[in-house]
Amino acid sequence: MQRYTPAQLQALVEKIFIKAGCSGSHAAIVADMLVSAELRGIPSHGLMRVKDYIGLWQKGRMNMQPQVKVVHETLSTATVDADMAPGMIAGKYAMELAIEKALQVGSGWVAVRNSNHFGIAGYYTMMASSKDMIGFAMTNANALVAPTFSLDRMLGTNPIAFSIPGKEEPVFTADFATTPIARGKLELMEKQGKESPQGFVQDKDGIQTTDPSVLRRGGAILPLGGDYQHASHKGYCMGAMVDILSAILSGANFGPFVPPQVAYLDPRPDAPGAGLGHFFGAIRIDGFRPAEEVKLYMDKWIRTFRAANASAEAERVVIPGEPEIAKEKDYKENGIPVMPQVWAELVATALGIGLSENDLNN
Amino acid sequence: MQRYTPAQLQALVEKIFIKAGCSGSHAAIVADMLVSAELRGIPSHGLMRVKDYIGLWQKGRMNMQPQVKVVHETLSTATVDADMAPGMIAGKYAMELAIEKALQVGSGWVAVRNSNHFGIAGYYTMMASSKDMIGFAMTNANALVAPTFSLDRMLGTNPIAFSIPGKEEPVFTADFATTPIARGKLELMEKQGKESPQGFVQDKDGIQTTDPSVLRRGGAILPLGGDYQHASHKGYCMGAMVDILSAILSGANFGPFVPPQVAYLDPRPDAPGAGLGHFFGAIRIDGFRPAEEVKLYMDKWIRTFRAANASAEAERVVIPGEPEIAKEKDYKENGIPVMPQVWAELVATALGIGLSENDLNN
Repeated sequence: MQRYTPAQLQALVEKIFIKAGCSGSHAAIVADMLVSAELRGIPSHGLMRVKDYIGLWQKGRMNMQPQVKVVHETLSTATVDADMAPGMIAGKYAMELAIEKALQVGSGWVAVRNSNHFGIAGYYTMMASSKDMIGFAMTNANALVAPTFSLDRMLGTNPIAFSIPGKEEPVFTADFATTPIARGKLELMEKQGKESPQGFVQDKDGIQTTDPSVLRRGGAILPLGGDYQHASHKGYCMGAMVDILSAILSGANFGPFVPPQVAYLDPRPDAPGAGLGHFFGAIRIDGFRPAEEVKLYMDKWIRTFRAANASAEAERVVIPGEPEIAKEKDYKENGIPVMPQVWAELVATALGIGLSENDLNN
Repeated sequence: MQRYTPAQLQALVEKIFIKAGCSGSHAAIVADMLVSAELRGIPSHGLMRVKDYIGLWQKGRMNMQPQVKVVHETLSTATVDADMAPGMIAGKYAMELAIEKALQVGSGWVAVRNSNHFGIAGYYTMMASSKDMIGFAMTNANALVAPTFSLDRMLGTNPIAFSIPGKEEPVFTADFATTPIARGKLELMEKQGKESPQGFVQDKDGIQTTDPSVLRRGGAILPLGGDYQHASHKGYCMGAMVDILSAILSGANFGPFVPPQVAYLDPRPDAPGAGLGHFFGAIRIDGFRPAEEVKLYMDKWIRTFRAANASAEAERVVIPGEPEIAKEKDYKENGIPVMPQVWAELVATALGIGLSENDLNN
């Protein structure tokens, strides 16, 4: 697979978003977030998304010149209206605001409405952890998940991320969907002619199936846990909590009304809210005791868990965030591998909005 | 099964804790929390616990005359030292402090150390929701759970609760452990001679088993999700997040060091922190937009999810908190059923610390 430097990818993506009307600084934010996803080994939230974002812009569903603004606030809380921005423009603005409030009063919590797909949640939480804060970030997403006992898709894969800094140990970052599997992995199984394991999806009658293509015929992804016996209601509760914090506080769309983040699927005409919603939080660790004490104790946590006896499945217990840090180191040194079809799509998208081959090469 | 009025149970539990040295107001708090657990249909966190609490007190591990106090704070954060109190004394104090901070600056976040078992997490979150706030509550617990790829028990069942008020609809309360099953249910399966379903427990070699007694022979409960293929690492992340927020910020014990909440199991001599830890949060819903708007929109969320088409397994999709509200209504009208052995233990505990039959009947 062809590899590219982060700077090469950054430059290309910036050009595309500037051509679509973004300011230079906004284009740089979008590009940085997408390249960061690639660096962390999460290509589903990386370059693949450029085509979708541009498609949403062409349909008038993404605003490349947004006026992102605070519409309501207290000393430690705020609601931000994203003006249909790319989610990362709104997300970075909102997390910076949360951090600023935390500097002032110890913590900051910001809900966002009228937004779009915001990339990887862990990007935002690490903005906080780099300032000796705990970061929280979550977003709702278009409905693919059936709550326990539901035939209907009512929730997105609704990820949640959490970062806390260590002293000598690297930052702990948990960043996970509230489902056992992402849609992209089901599509991959289908392409490869594989069955999906039990506990991932149900058909239109609510019966579990191993057919990875069932989402196209009224099926749904199950919440984390799988079925009721295995406590899928707890996965449902987590997904619901993310949806409520992201949408109910801000006035974004919730559950089944969340707008799809691809141009070929239309938003629901009866959607009661504004765009897609996110929720961000930052808490100063020295709001509880001296930062040094917290970070040294976090090191001890990490070392204790890393030293647990491991099963035959793995060398050792994984500390959340470590695999992504290793990947980032590798890709920064050796370049980021990009699948040929993703690269081809990216170039086609660039040419499609009026950039020339010459633009791409300079 | 014999039924008792909430007032009867409240009076008996108060007498026991007063006899053990609690002030009248502290005894009333402990009793109210335990009776609330019974009313909500969670007897594992109700009267059954009295024997354990008294046992911890008799071993000098629970302080019935605690000086609970704030040891560090900012406008929106604080750490509370529980002075080895029964967890509900510290928990109620901490949640009241979080609510007070939220009234002042929009949100409040309180970490607690040096505490004990705190009852049902949802009790605290409903303290916040009754004041038009979102409530968060979580606690760590003694280690029974093996993280993904671990042979060792490193985490407790670490529950998390979340409440948000509706306008006409009842409060939404999710209150759930971050595991597919609680220890108590495994014990029940064992007593009934039943096998445990796949995906609940592993043996000492990390192999899944259906033997519900395996915890007594080096086994462990699995995180929510079950195995790695089914994304148990996401359940591990959730349990870890609860542990970190409860212990790392406050300086309580984390993971494998959390003291067991029964007198017959000793705390680890190498425990690096202070007691068990909790974490509480309160956010004013009008910190984001007018409370009325948020509550009406929450009603819409609840009605939308309730109206989802249901599978053959159930009449309809369950809104988190609804079953507990129905149970509470039933038990308030018809009395709380108490298992004969639980009642006998309660009476034996009371007599064992010097109350007389006469005391119990008046």
